[in-house]
Amino acid sequence: MSRWKPDARGRLEKAALELYNHQGFDATTVAEIATRAGVTERTFYRHFADKREVLFPADNPIADVLADASAAAPVPLPPLEVITHALTEAAPVFEERGDLARQRQAVIAANPELQERELAKLAAFTSTLAHVLRERGLETTTAALAAEIGIAAFKVAYERWVNDADRHSLAQHIRETLDTARHLIAPAEPATGDMSFTGQEGAA
Amino acid sequence: MSRWKPDARGRLEKAALELYNHQGFDATTVAEIATRAGVTERTFYRHFADKREVLFPADNPIADVLADASAAAPVPLPPLEVITHALTEAAPVFEERGDLARQRQAVIAANPELQERELAKLAAFTSTLAHVLRERGLETTTAALAAEIGIAAFKVAYERWVNDADRHSLAQHIRETLDTARHLIAPAEPATGDMSFTGQEGAA
Repeated sequence: MSRWKPDARGRLEKAALELYNHQGFDATTVAEIATRAGVTERTFYRHFADKREVLFPADNPIADVLADASAAAPVPLPPLEVITHALTEAAPVFEERGDLARQRQAVIAANPELQERELAKLAAFTSTLAHVLRERGLETTTAALAAEIGIAAFKVAYERWVNDADRHSLAQHIRETLDTARHLIAPAEPATGDMSFTGQEGAA
Repeated sequence: MSRWKPDARGRLEKAALELYNHQGFDATTVAEIATRAGVTERTFYRHFADKREVLFPADNPIADVLADASAAAPVPLPPLEVITHALTEAAPVFEERGDLARQRQAVIAANPELQERELAKLAAFTSTLAHVLRERGLETTTAALAAEIGIAAFKVAYERWVNDADRHSLAQHIRETLDTARHLIAPAEPATGDMSFTGQEGAA
């Protein structure tokens, strides 16, 4: 039906995400994915170990991008700026995937087991970042905390990006989310006590 | 051998944690736990659905404590103070368990599957907190971010507490960790740019 395309892996991924979203991850078989992609099951297994690996590829480049970018950040940068720098460098990897990233997110949101896997993946990113920050000379707690906060902000930014009807870039959502983080800790100001952050937002 | 104690659940938990730590979670059977606790397998199943539930009890009170404490926090408090308040209120629930909490942590650290389960539990706490913050009038992103950062800080504080040879309280570790978080996300001050956070820590 459709014009033949040489990118079997790309077609398999697209077919899998469509089926996972349409009929559920658990209900989808590798045979169905292969058929929809116009390839054999054997071809599927040449690219992916199983149907979960379509969502969690073994060769995910993000961890490397994060590690390299945070290691390469200028030395006098405060820890959270290092993280922001690294996350912003990694953003294009997600941007490029556009709708595929959105479809993947919907599949994961619908399946608790995949959510646990996704959390584990993010925890691995956190460990990677914490390790790089320690190598940069940060004390253990500070490194762990900066990495945790960075990935926490990334999660929120990513969620916003996936659901953003206006399609602002992921890098922009990351910057905005980290700006919001800075407001979270603003000490209570007696003069504006009644018009606190909480109050202002509540009135919106 | 030991004096008879009526607390079958407590003895089962103690026996299970000892066995999980000693011979591994996967290698331990319910029969062994029951024997070590001096009860029947039937008694085990009256208290726990399976051996994983010893580590993740269905009736975990923490989520309720967090929700109640954050809902009851004074209204003009900045979001991160609300979280600090809630986490500090929940701390005694962990403190009371003392060595059991430490043993549990060691079991989980040794088993990737249990780690994923633990991350899912923490993610559920995050959702609970974000929900309460939205109810308090916070906008969605701010609520999600405050909850994520709060639980991120809790994870780091908990890890410190479990490994603290000086046995400072969990509440104290939570306060200290959130203080570090405040420094990390504080807006950069141009005047002190050359003596940045990274530089100071790196020199230590």
